[in-house]
Amino acid sequence: MSSENSHSTDVVIIGAGPVGLFAVFECGMLKMRTHVVDALDMVGGQCAALYPEKPIYDIPAHPAIDGADLIDKLAEQAAPFNPTYHLGQQVTTLTRTDAGWRVGTDKGTIIDAKAVIIAAGVGAFGPNKPPLDGLEAYEGTGIFYLVKRRQDFAGKRIVIAGGGDSAVDWANSLSEVAAHVMVVHRRPKFRAAPESVSRLDALVKEGKVEMVVPYQLSGLEGTDGKLTGVRVADLDDNEKVLDADVLLPFFGLAMNLGPIADWGLDMEKGHILVDQRTLATSAPGIFAIGDIAHYPGKLKLILCGFSEAAMAAHAAHGLVHPDHVLHFEYSTSKGLPGA
Amino acid sequence: MSSENSHSTDVVIIGAGPVGLFAVFECGMLKMRTHVVDALDMVGGQCAALYPEKPIYDIPAHPAIDGADLIDKLAEQAAPFNPTYHLGQQVTTLTRTDAGWRVGTDKGTIIDAKAVIIAAGVGAFGPNKPPLDGLEAYEGTGIFYLVKRRQDFAGKRIVIAGGGDSAVDWANSLSEVAAHVMVVHRRPKFRAAPESVSRLDALVKEGKVEMVVPYQLSGLEGTDGKLTGVRVADLDDNEKVLDADVLLPFFGLAMNLGPIADWGLDMEKGHILVDQRTLATSAPGIFAIGDIAHYPGKLKLILCGFSEAAMAAHAAHGLVHPDHVLHFEYSTSKGLPGA
Repeated sequence: MSSENSHSTDVVIIGAGPVGLFAVFECGMLKMRTHVVDALDMVGGQCAALYPEKPIYDIPAHPAIDGADLIDKLAEQAAPFNPTYHLGQQVTTLTRTDAGWRVGTDKGTIIDAKAVIIAAGVGAFGPNKPPLDGLEAYEGTGIFYLVKRRQDFAGKRIVIAGGGDSAVDWANSLSEVAAHVMVVHRRPKFRAAPESVSRLDALVKEGKVEMVVPYQLSGLEGTDGKLTGVRVADLDDNEKVLDADVLLPFFGLAMNLGPIADWGLDMEKGHILVDQRTLATSAPGIFAIGDIAHYPGKLKLILCGFSEAAMAAHAAHGLVHPDHVLHFEYSTSKGLPGA
Repeated sequence: MSSENSHSTDVVIIGAGPVGLFAVFECGMLKMRTHVVDALDMVGGQCAALYPEKPIYDIPAHPAIDGADLIDKLAEQAAPFNPTYHLGQQVTTLTRTDAGWRVGTDKGTIIDAKAVIIAAGVGAFGPNKPPLDGLEAYEGTGIFYLVKRRQDFAGKRIVIAGGGDSAVDWANSLSEVAAHVMVVHRRPKFRAAPESVSRLDALVKEGKVEMVVPYQLSGLEGTDGKLTGVRVADLDDNEKVLDADVLLPFFGLAMNLGPIADWGLDMEKGHILVDQRTLATSAPGIFAIGDIAHYPGKLKLILCGFSEAAMAAHAAHGLVHPDHVLHFEYSTSKGLPGA
């Protein structure tokens, strides 16, 4: 370490989302030290930044857990291994060294490591915005691309636009607190979990959610930065106005891989191609796990990312501790972390 | 359904351990009904039967959780999907039908399904039995492999055989209620927690437990299914008879794949070979997940089994609902189970 901004470790993990945090734990269990870099200024990735209060139902042995709790527990599980976090900085360079790889960030941090695990999710991310005139005037007052606190929307007349999981899940959830919930979608069919769509259908029948289909957003109404209505148009361009205080456009996230695309790794449609057995990328010593990794049959589920973290850590172990053969196989026979 | 013992469902899951339970959840999220069969008379597999109180440290987002809690939470997570459990029965037959597979158990239960997911862990497990002639005649009356209710042994003359924790712990405990407790072990040294061994030594000194070492079991005495004595032999084969009403052999558990080995699936060293991408076995429509499944790079971790459950459920979905294409991909956008 030549300065306080230069470091040396066993494994650099790029991305401090749930999968990156669990990779810290898995590396720790195999006695590998870790440094973690994330562009956000907090750990947790999307879970913490985009849906801290949204319940997640498919984390094994957590019948329901919200994004913030999930991250708290994963950080607690990783903590005994004393990872070093470099937050609020983006990895810009990844270069080969004699002993492994050198990671450089936009804040000038340099970390030398024997292996790198990329758990960068979708990369840097932001919402896709609908092409409506004057949109900016209402952002943060009447237009939101994510729901941070459900209670902020209590008693409001809400227009939700979109046909995916976010639109359906938030329509279901906000119907419990809002004055009125309207869902605008171009098609009568929703591309969401079948159970959630069934629940939405039931809410529509009960009169708790109003379905505005097939329609799409066509304009905004309001004065002095206060939204009063959302204009929608049907397929023949017939317009009507929905009285509303809030518009929630859920058109997905624009993902920006950033410098990752320049590192020379084999990629496909914005994802890093890996060997499913080891999560190894095309560059020796660099692994990719979670949503950014792709292999045939890949499911973009957090719980699958956890498993990938374990497999990548085991594969990286051969590089970090080449003389130490791993013997244990069973999770139940593992020792106390950090003991 | 031709009788109350014949059933029809989407997916049969063989094994109600942690991975089998999570497969119920994953199938449920994809609108597939499940029946679950397990040889034990409770859910949870090894976690519940062998180490309910032992903490596990590598379940993601559970910094520490014991086996019983883990199973409780997984069962709670699966419950909204109303799985049908067939416990205390072993799957004996697996036969092809026009529509999929027919599963038959040793209790005569028959279940027709479109797909089968084998999550059988190490197979059925049961006690190692001592090689004594006529053993079966006393099982359940004078010979027991586990103690369900201590009070059942009040006032009895008890021979405990074995040198591990079970032998030592039960000698200590039963000495409080039994008429007489004898401990038969081939060596004078016991492989048990030091505290427990110290307590046993004290009980022997007090005359409350009789130590019969170095001896091993050599025969049984009794008439009409009623045990009256246990024959033991020393290292020179000199025999003597211990007057006893009850024999408790504690020689550990035997893992037994049982009928699974006869189903014609491609196997290797007691494991079922699967395609890592889909967890498909060599038989179309049959999947294997968790410890019983093998592929290159396989890690026997519960958390990897969870991921395999998700992947197998998605693969099975194509067989169960061939006309319904799955759209959703993200775990965070999944809907409410069973709502």
